[in-house]
Amino acid sequence: VIEVVALDGDDTLWHSEPHFVVTQERVAELLSADVDPDTLERELEATERRNLALYGYGVKGFTLSLIETAISVSDGRVSSEQIATVLRWGRELLAQPVELLDGAEETVRRLSEEHRLVLITKGDLFHQETKVASSGLADRFEHVAIVAEKDPPTYARVADQLGVAPSAMVMVGNSVRSDVLPVLELGGYAVHVPYAVTWALEHAELTLDGPGADRYVQLGSIRELPGYLAELSRR
Amino acid sequence: VIEVVALDGDDTLWHSEPHFVVTQERVAELLSADVDPDTLERELEATERRNLALYGYGVKGFTLSLIETAISVSDGRVSSEQIATVLRWGRELLAQPVELLDGAEETVRRLSEEHRLVLITKGDLFHQETKVASSGLADRFEHVAIVAEKDPPTYARVADQLGVAPSAMVMVGNSVRSDVLPVLELGGYAVHVPYAVTWALEHAELTLDGPGADRYVQLGSIRELPGYLAELSRR
Repeated sequence: VIEVVALDGDDTLWHSEPHFVVTQERVAELLSADVDPDTLERELEATERRNLALYGYGVKGFTLSLIETAISVSDGRVSSEQIATVLRWGRELLAQPVELLDGAEETVRRLSEEHRLVLITKGDLFHQETKVASSGLADRFEHVAIVAEKDPPTYARVADQLGVAPSAMVMVGNSVRSDVLPVLELGGYAVHVPYAVTWALEHAELTLDGPGADRYVQLGSIRELPGYLAELSRR
Repeated sequence: VIEVVALDGDDTLWHSEPHFVVTQERVAELLSADVDPDTLERELEATERRNLALYGYGVKGFTLSLIETAISVSDGRVSSEQIATVLRWGRELLAQPVELLDGAEETVRRLSEEHRLVLITKGDLFHQETKVASSGLADRFEHVAIVAEKDPPTYARVADQLGVAPSAMVMVGNSVRSDVLPVLELGGYAVHVPYAVTWALEHAELTLDGPGADRYVQLGSIRELPGYLAELSRR
């Protein structure tokens, strides 16, 4: 029996990745005289991957990695004025109003009538708290966990705090790597709701013939979630 | 009766602020041909204050504000090579090994024998988790709360999670603004252990004739904490 429904925030309840993509495109345009856009994209991914263990996730690390990459791929030709522009776009990303995904509000309200709800999200602590607060959904959640990494120990800790076994928990999110695989590994249920765009560092393969295949489903929209949970309870 | 002893991390259990000060001095030296050090210091403080509501606390926001300030106070004369150096020093700050304050380890061990201990720290989530883990003290704490802001609602939430009244909790830290005033306001106890240097944005005045004066003490070292708690229990 599912007691706790855990939901991801970015690109599950509200739009996030497109804002990063747009910013990256604007930077590519800004630097187009000195830098080939494909090189910028490839090198930015490498820089973000290298910095992940120091910066973690979120806009601040993204902005720092953008500046580092812009300097290195332009062989230092990027101007301080251009860097100031990148810094400003980074601040604009942090100030971007929260825009809920279609169906998110209604689904969260319906789920909250029958389940204990938690929100599990990663990124900059300050920014995530701001987004949760301005989403208007905070009151529906029993607990909001803003975490540094979404791995099995993190999910085990959250389940422990809530006093439930992982097998009584379902995690819902857009990332196979962060929302699905670690939860299946712990013996929990996972629902993948793909989003239009996925950040390169979140790409992961899911093999569906391993253990846990019966605890996993992919849905086309968060709107299908109440129906799936009803089906699970009848199994 | 004090049930829970809450401790701050940065500059209470381990050294932090001197690393920021040294980095700022290195940047002042790096930019000395273009920027007067006093102007840099004054403008950096103004930039950090302005960005606080977007960046929150921590090294990543500090690095972004340093770069923004370097560009503006040099009228754009700072080179991309110099900015790359500032980025590198920011990453070095994040990679800096944790160095415990004198007496911290022994005191935490002694306190853990008689009290429920929690660690309440603010800053970049990823960086704070890394520091807590590498401090070697994590096992002594029942709970580690990494928070975006240390205000009365935050302390009330932590107390609530622990199932104690604020009046049964003492907070120990180096910042009057973040560790002392909000806890006294909630009716809890606060111990101020000043550190050699205090970040400008943490400066605050403490008036000792208001309510809560009997719930506050300043100690010269964390080593005096067990004695103070013993005295409190005899009151």
